[in-house]
Amino acid sequence: MELDTIIHATQSAVARNDWKTASGIVNALPYPDIASVLGHLSAEAALQLLRRCQHDKQSIIFGYMAPRIQSEMAQLMSRSELTALFEKMEHDERADLYNRLSEEERQSILPGLAHAEREDIRTLASYKEGTIGSIMTSAYVSLHDDLTVAQALERIRLEAPDAETIYQIYIVDKQRHLKGTVSLRELMLANPNAVLRDIMVTDVLHARADEDQSEAANQIARYDLLALPIVDDKQRIVGIVTHDDALDVSREESTEDQMRLGAVSTVGSGLNISLKDASIAVLYRMRVFWLVILVFGNIFSGAGIAHFEELIESMVALVFFLPLLVDSGGNAGSQSATLMVRALATGDVRARDWFSMLGKEITVALLLGLSMAAAVSIIGFYRGGPDIALVVALTMIVIVIVGSVIGMSLPFLLTRFKLDPASASAPLITSICDGVGVLIYFNIANILLEMPTV
Amino acid sequence: MELDTIIHATQSAVARNDWKTASGIVNALPYPDIASVLGHLSAEAALQLLRRCQHDKQSIIFGYMAPRIQSEMAQLMSRSELTALFEKMEHDERADLYNRLSEEERQSILPGLAHAEREDIRTLASYKEGTIGSIMTSAYVSLHDDLTVAQALERIRLEAPDAETIYQIYIVDKQRHLKGTVSLRELMLANPNAVLRDIMVTDVLHARADEDQSEAANQIARYDLLALPIVDDKQRIVGIVTHDDALDVSREESTEDQMRLGAVSTVGSGLNISLKDASIAVLYRMRVFWLVILVFGNIFSGAGIAHFEELIESMVALVFFLPLLVDSGGNAGSQSATLMVRALATGDVRARDWFSMLGKEITVALLLGLSMAAAVSIIGFYRGGPDIALVVALTMIVIVIVGSVIGMSLPFLLTRFKLDPASASAPLITSICDGVGVLIYFNIANILLEMPTV
Repeated sequence: MELDTIIHATQSAVARNDWKTASGIVNALPYPDIASVLGHLSAEAALQLLRRCQHDKQSIIFGYMAPRIQSEMAQLMSRSELTALFEKMEHDERADLYNRLSEEERQSILPGLAHAEREDIRTLASYKEGTIGSIMTSAYVSLHDDLTVAQALERIRLEAPDAETIYQIYIVDKQRHLKGTVSLRELMLANPNAVLRDIMVTDVLHARADEDQSEAANQIARYDLLALPIVDDKQRIVGIVTHDDALDVSREESTEDQMRLGAVSTVGSGLNISLKDASIAVLYRMRVFWLVILVFGNIFSGAGIAHFEELIESMVALVFFLPLLVDSGGNAGSQSATLMVRALATGDVRARDWFSMLGKEITVALLLGLSMAAAVSIIGFYRGGPDIALVVALTMIVIVIVGSVIGMSLPFLLTRFKLDPASASAPLITSICDGVGVLIYFNIANILLEMPTV
Repeated sequence: MELDTIIHATQSAVARNDWKTASGIVNALPYPDIASVLGHLSAEAALQLLRRCQHDKQSIIFGYMAPRIQSEMAQLMSRSELTALFEKMEHDERADLYNRLSEEERQSILPGLAHAEREDIRTLASYKEGTIGSIMTSAYVSLHDDLTVAQALERIRLEAPDAETIYQIYIVDKQRHLKGTVSLRELMLANPNAVLRDIMVTDVLHARADEDQSEAANQIARYDLLALPIVDDKQRIVGIVTHDDALDVSREESTEDQMRLGAVSTVGSGLNISLKDASIAVLYRMRVFWLVILVFGNIFSGAGIAHFEELIESMVALVFFLPLLVDSGGNAGSQSATLMVRALATGDVRARDWFSMLGKEITVALLLGLSMAAAVSIIGFYRGGPDIALVVALTMIVIVIVGSVIGMSLPFLLTRFKLDPASASAPLITSICDGVGVLIYFNIANILLEMPTV
């Protein structure tokens, strides 16, 4: 059955107050799907249904729900219910929820939690959104290096119910400095009497909790890791980021980059939003900012054109080539920006590489400009003779080079000012290149056609 | 040390024929980094250095290398060397390599391989690029449901050296139908005398080998899976896709979508290409196709303008608003296309949802159009009086609605024709909307300003 159909069936069962049918429907689904279905109900109904799910499943399902409805449901829960949920939720998810609770709610549940849990929540909740610390979990298995393999396996078995993964184990010293790692596979194949110190890998890939979350995702992707250990500034292990978090980060960041490149604002709307379910108000907010900004940006192009009014009046034929030439600059610029934004996101190119990339960019743009000038000069020749053909061809070359350089430089410039390079969207580049293109075109025309100066 | 520095050091050691230093440098690195360094050498030098890596590491490093250099190196290897490498490579990677070998090379290595390996390679290599079959591996652990937990753990230990993952085990019947699954964690916590049949999960998420690879990545991401079992059309298990493959697919597909949205062609260039290392010829090829196509697309806008030459001559002020109005349609359209391409890629929206999304799109576009019309009519009033303000405001509303509908529809249309929806790039949408926008603008102006008909 399609999820849409399941959602409808559940909604109508809830509308009839038929909780038995509703809970029968959702209980047959995988956890993330239950969370999706609950997300389409009111917070009250979702909580009613959640309470009818198996006790040990509730915190997992709740963990998959969207932040907004989590907060709404938390407000409806009794203090003891919320405390019980907190105890069982995954550590990274409950820290996120904690950050969204009101001060009052926080104070009401903290006393019910064990000291260690309170500390864990406070620590994880203290990392800034977007850092590795904000996505890592503290539920990992760490062992000392003097254990034998048999002892280690026994310890892992004990910790298995609480740990997010038991497949990668981290070896620490008394001060919790990260000393090595060993996989469960290696442990299972090793001699039970061997000591961890002798079989562990000592050169452990790791990242710092205050680095950007994409750093963790990039490492996990590049090195095919199940989990990446995270350390503080003294090399002490403070958590791990698991493969599923890396996949989420990677998808979130590429959605975010794609949206920004398309001049869609993601601020305040949440990225996990479904386009199908999004309200008209949310969609409006995501789009209006850049559209209005770009209207004002385009006034410069208009002003440029107005400045050359006399030239245009004396040779309206020039206007025929205006969209073609001006758009080509924007298109070349959009391509350059797209390539650069992706290269910066995957770590292929770094902020300091601008100058070394510039030469190649200009060479490629020159070749592209020549190809396009060849195409466009034929049209120019047929429509306006050799003079126009020359103006159009020359303009094309200059515009493509200038557009490409603007397009490749803007992401670097944004990075320099600590902004997201993906804000160099195609529409923004187009607007800038339009204004510049108008000036280039009419200036070249003015000079070559020896028109009266304006 | 930065990877760039390591690459330079290795290159200069190789240039001096100092293989000992070169192999000393690379042997200290993680496998994917060794592969990166070797990728910056000639195929001959890379092979020389690979031979100096530890024997059991060689196939792993080779597996991380880019397809092109893999093929070049394979041509330089002796038959026995290539056969030995094939035996040890990961099953999905060697099937990819097999597909790139010449018929002659294939015939030279197949006889050296065991019957089962030959069959495995032929089967995996037969799946089309882009399908789940082409990324899955056959190195998974499958067990029968009548084993006890203790027996299962013993079997897993035996299969561990060859399997890609031992952390998720699949339960099959005699005909290899997928019956259930159990994780190693569950096995470790279970009573050793329990029988698999009684502890396995029977409702197993799975996908078919002939489905699109993004389907597997989407399921692994949504359900936080370590691996997804893949079945044939008779529900028999034929392989698994692991979390790291899902991450690779997800990153590859979002790179591909981003490139397409930015009008950069990815055909033939390979997505794993580094912008830093890419040759000028490759970059030129990636960009020239769409730029030239779009030049011809923009001729329509030019023709539209030429058609209204008289109108423009009699009121040059209209040209001031041309870029502003026309670009707004393209910008709104780019936003719509961006949102829709991402929603189609993540499975949030499906091809048949076009009509149900259309109403919402028009409503949002109307609100956006009204906001922008308000902004632009003020400028229109100051520059040309109430008549111009009215023309400009009305044009803005119509252009934004038409642009948005074009932008949201094009990805659906491309999907319908089995093309990638992401080919609805911002520059393409801009070109289409420019042409349409010119017609809308001058027609509205023509009617409202009661200009002489053209």
